[in-house]
Amino acid sequence: MKQNKQYVRAGFQGERGAFSEIAVRQLLGSESDPIPIEWFDGVFQALMDKKIDAAVIPMENTLHGSVIENFDHLLNHDIEVVGETSVRIVHNLIALPGVAFKDIKEVYSHPVALNQCLKFLHQNPQVEKKTFYDTAGSVKMLAETKRRDAAAIASNLSADIYGARILKRGIEDDRANFTRFFLLQRKGGTVKGKMPPSKKVSIVLSTKNEPGSLFRALAALALRDISLTKIESRPLKGKPWEYLFYIDFEGTLKDVKVQNAIRHLEEVADFLKVLGGY
Amino acid sequence: MKQNKQYVRAGFQGERGAFSEIAVRQLLGSESDPIPIEWFDGVFQALMDKKIDAAVIPMENTLHGSVIENFDHLLNHDIEVVGETSVRIVHNLIALPGVAFKDIKEVYSHPVALNQCLKFLHQNPQVEKKTFYDTAGSVKMLAETKRRDAAAIASNLSADIYGARILKRGIEDDRANFTRFFLLQRKGGTVKGKMPPSKKVSIVLSTKNEPGSLFRALAALALRDISLTKIESRPLKGKPWEYLFYIDFEGTLKDVKVQNAIRHLEEVADFLKVLGGY
Repeated sequence: MKQNKQYVRAGFQGERGAFSEIAVRQLLGSESDPIPIEWFDGVFQALMDKKIDAAVIPMENTLHGSVIENFDHLLNHDIEVVGETSVRIVHNLIALPGVAFKDIKEVYSHPVALNQCLKFLHQNPQVEKKTFYDTAGSVKMLAETKRRDAAAIASNLSADIYGARILKRGIEDDRANFTRFFLLQRKGGTVKGKMPPSKKVSIVLSTKNEPGSLFRALAALALRDISLTKIESRPLKGKPWEYLFYIDFEGTLKDVKVQNAIRHLEEVADFLKVLGGY
Repeated sequence: MKQNKQYVRAGFQGERGAFSEIAVRQLLGSESDPIPIEWFDGVFQALMDKKIDAAVIPMENTLHGSVIENFDHLLNHDIEVVGETSVRIVHNLIALPGVAFKDIKEVYSHPVALNQCLKFLHQNPQVEKKTFYDTAGSVKMLAETKRRDAAAIASNLSADIYGARILKRGIEDDRANFTRFFLLQRKGGTVKGKMPPSKKVSIVLSTKNEPGSLFRALAALALRDISLTKIESRPLKGKPWEYLFYIDFEGTLKDVKVQNAIRHLEEVADFLKVLGGY
């Protein structure tokens, strides 16, 4: 870890070279120390414990949907969202330098990545697929074990980091495969992302358990011509069949219209937390 | 499998004794043949191939949220929802007959079930937790391997089915742990559930990608005093950051008010599918 004070210590889940590290670079540029952490709850804990200055976490993927665990973490920690970015998930076949495609007998990756490269795997039945706990971790494993009969499926960044080579680029079945990441800081922190602002606000609320309550909540936005870009429901713990709604909408927290909408939402909601404007 | 024509062949995911089989019994009574199937997509395929008459699948859990894979399957198959039920998830410590609690060195179960019994596991550190692919499957494994130093965490039904005994009942941390199941048939089938009707309708729709479109869709329900009971968003494949909304509301498909609301929804939606009334 570099000790220069200018560098933002940015935690992410996974091994060095993970797609989350690509998001760290997009959000914070090269003036960041990407800090790999094994589990999502560990990333949030490190942020609260001031072991890192910022966290970069995936919120949703266009093929898979939301990373629901992280919605719960957003609610339960005293953090704010200060940026977002989206990373196109490009899967590459990666092997050690000098290894040829015809040498490959096995290919390692996370099961989700393997499932996103089914066409390639069907066209190459001589290659046996092997599940591994992490995409970038499978490249790291090749480098550590010096395997010359195996490849990994992972990001181009992971090939750079572990000194491996890309044998085939972009072997994913579906190119409309993007993951959206949030940049988080402790409440009141001073982390600044390098991305142009999205001009979006994220909130989470629960509505009274009565007919029309969600409709009335959305009215607070719609009647002010504020455009909702995403709504996600999550179960409310301890209250079976009641829900929290995570809502993203266009605007900034400085807009009077947005401030009025939030005040209006507070009136109609049982509970409301502003997660951040970015 | 019994050959008597009166028996409904009801497919579910998992091993015999799974919580889904408890849902089969609640939904179809004892006049059903519960048919265990390994994967969710296999259950849907068996229904389409007429290998089973009905399918019983979990849609959401009050602690974990939606079983998102099954929402996609509902959209992509020509099926209808004809019933729902909710099962309280009670975890029991189960061992073979004659095995005492003090003999237990290891406890096997699905990682989700182990995570829902953390208090019990912390209070009994002499018992090592071991992950297994299935709750009921771990009881089956005990019966097959005749292990006398191990227990499983699973449903009371799985103890009955595999001739095992419950050593401790209800060891789950949180009693507000329910799973909601749908009873499905092929479109136009004649399966009748034994549960009293819920008087609910499930639909899935996508809205035009323009401000206020979800609000206008919900207006079709709210302006008719139709109570929305659940909304769930899922990414629309091939259209990054656009969504499908799965919506449940109160009413029956015979209500004129509901028929009008569906006609109104068809006007404002890009796409709409009625999944069923039950």
